[in-house]
Amino acid sequence: MKALVYDGELRLVGDYPRPEPPPGEALVRVTLAGICNTDLEVVRGYMGFHGVLGHEFVGVVETCDNAPELVGQRVVGDINAACGNCPTCRAGRPTHCPQRTTLGIDRRDGAFAEFLTLPTVNLFPVPDQLSDREAVFAEPLAAACEILEQVHLHPTDRVAVLGDGKLGLLVAQVLSLTGCDLLVVGRHPQKLAILRQRGIPTALANEARNIQADVVIDCTGHPDGFLSARTMVRPRGTLVLKSTFHGVNQVDLTSLVVDEVQLVGSRCGPFAPALRLLARRLIDVESLIDAVYPLDKALAAFERASTKGTLKILLEVA
Amino acid sequence: MKALVYDGELRLVGDYPRPEPPPGEALVRVTLAGICNTDLEVVRGYMGFHGVLGHEFVGVVETCDNAPELVGQRVVGDINAACGNCPTCRAGRPTHCPQRTTLGIDRRDGAFAEFLTLPTVNLFPVPDQLSDREAVFAEPLAAACEILEQVHLHPTDRVAVLGDGKLGLLVAQVLSLTGCDLLVVGRHPQKLAILRQRGIPTALANEARNIQADVVIDCTGHPDGFLSARTMVRPRGTLVLKSTFHGVNQVDLTSLVVDEVQLVGSRCGPFAPALRLLARRLIDVESLIDAVYPLDKALAAFERASTKGTLKILLEVA
Repeated sequence: MKALVYDGELRLVGDYPRPEPPPGEALVRVTLAGICNTDLEVVRGYMGFHGVLGHEFVGVVETCDNAPELVGQRVVGDINAACGNCPTCRAGRPTHCPQRTTLGIDRRDGAFAEFLTLPTVNLFPVPDQLSDREAVFAEPLAAACEILEQVHLHPTDRVAVLGDGKLGLLVAQVLSLTGCDLLVVGRHPQKLAILRQRGIPTALANEARNIQADVVIDCTGHPDGFLSARTMVRPRGTLVLKSTFHGVNQVDLTSLVVDEVQLVGSRCGPFAPALRLLARRLIDVESLIDAVYPLDKALAAFERASTKGTLKILLEVA
Repeated sequence: MKALVYDGELRLVGDYPRPEPPPGEALVRVTLAGICNTDLEVVRGYMGFHGVLGHEFVGVVETCDNAPELVGQRVVGDINAACGNCPTCRAGRPTHCPQRTTLGIDRRDGAFAEFLTLPTVNLFPVPDQLSDREAVFAEPLAAACEILEQVHLHPTDRVAVLGDGKLGLLVAQVLSLTGCDLLVVGRHPQKLAILRQRGIPTALANEARNIQADVVIDCTGHPDGFLSARTMVRPRGTLVLKSTFHGVNQVDLTSLVVDEVQLVGSRCGPFAPALRLLARRLIDVESLIDAVYPLDKALAAFERASTKGTLKILLEVA
């Protein structure tokens, strides 16, 4: 099958072996996939991953030994494949299973290919009223919903989202649904305009001074974002970390103690509410799509996705 | 009056001016005070404080313009003197008032003297059944209670406390009252024995391997404690920071995101529950007292308090 592979270099391969689903897993024919910043980081060495890239997808179940009723069903999927038996899984935290593999990121071939496999329990049927172009956002939208799983955001809270990239724009839209007093700080007027059209206040980073918020979300995706975000958190406030990057930061832990600030690391999230928000037409994902490339032009798509300021690049697989 | 002053060097002064309480503040005659690690750090330059040291005290109200019924009353006191009018104070967070002064730490003369002043609203009457030797622990015990104000500790939680210093021993005793599955990790068998006598499991740091706790409290008081504590937090667990020290740490923020760990900075706490726990005889503070010195021998007391492994040194003022 065709697949976009990273094995030290990024290559489009025509004869990659079609995956054979082990028991409990489904074979999924990918129809549409999305390029995420994490994919770009993997190509820079993040996680030391070699194999088929990609973890945001929509597809159709081709075979499924343990749930034959799913065959022919359009699905999206949770990217963390957990063992299901360890104490972490049994405690209800499968996305943190120490034995987990992760689609296109850690020891599991990903979605930029004609087929992928995932455990059947990871799959979520896509409501009929959603297009593939919408459903392909379920994974990053779930990551945005994860913030509300972790933090009790009050409708009266003053909230700042830092970063107007793909994730920042989804996070801002999800948090705005709480009715909270939201400000999104970014560097790209055109991206911020997407939010302003939905009534969400925005500011350019160099204009955002003396902000003191109850909850701040760092979606900048780079190490410098932390310091900016930290200055915006009020004493006893919460700073949610959504950025992953190489290397370590210098952090003044004593100031966290003195100001009693909470840091909350936040990663993958729940698919069911993400699909509900999409089905209820509460999230604008169409404006986030920059371009769609066929899988055959995946290398050009990656180059475009790597260009500063680009929003979501999709790969049409079938 | 007699006072222990730090003004670049630590000096016992015989003729320090007796403080004049401004409107809304009480004059308190100090009877007993405690030396805290923060006092030792102030002498090393922390907060750049110059003045009378000390913030843990018991005393008797001498004068009080706005609550004359308090005169003659034995009291302990919250060390953060807030303005009461700013948005932070009005939001119910006076210990984070940006205009606050702090007893013996920040722009307010402290408790190692015959008299101090504090806002009347900061004072808490000491129940009759408590001795001065017990009541003087109200301030650090309040800081231990602060953890339970901030974190919902479940009786079924696995909890690790790192550090068997004065604060660690108080924190461990408070957290043990929740019925949680507690382990205290320290370096001093004699200090840990105080906890084991109360049925609290302990381990020496070099024996504590592969601990994975739901909640970890860093009470080590030094920068290295963070890394040890971090390795003990399970994914989606909580790391409470109780240590203050000079300088910054190297922190792997991406690992906080991937493991969805929460960091919670924790400082001063509520006095009322601390006094209730003492009055209910639920906390052993007597075992934490290393020695009592008269204020006249405060310099020797400080030297003893600075000796590694020393527990609480008290200063008898009157």
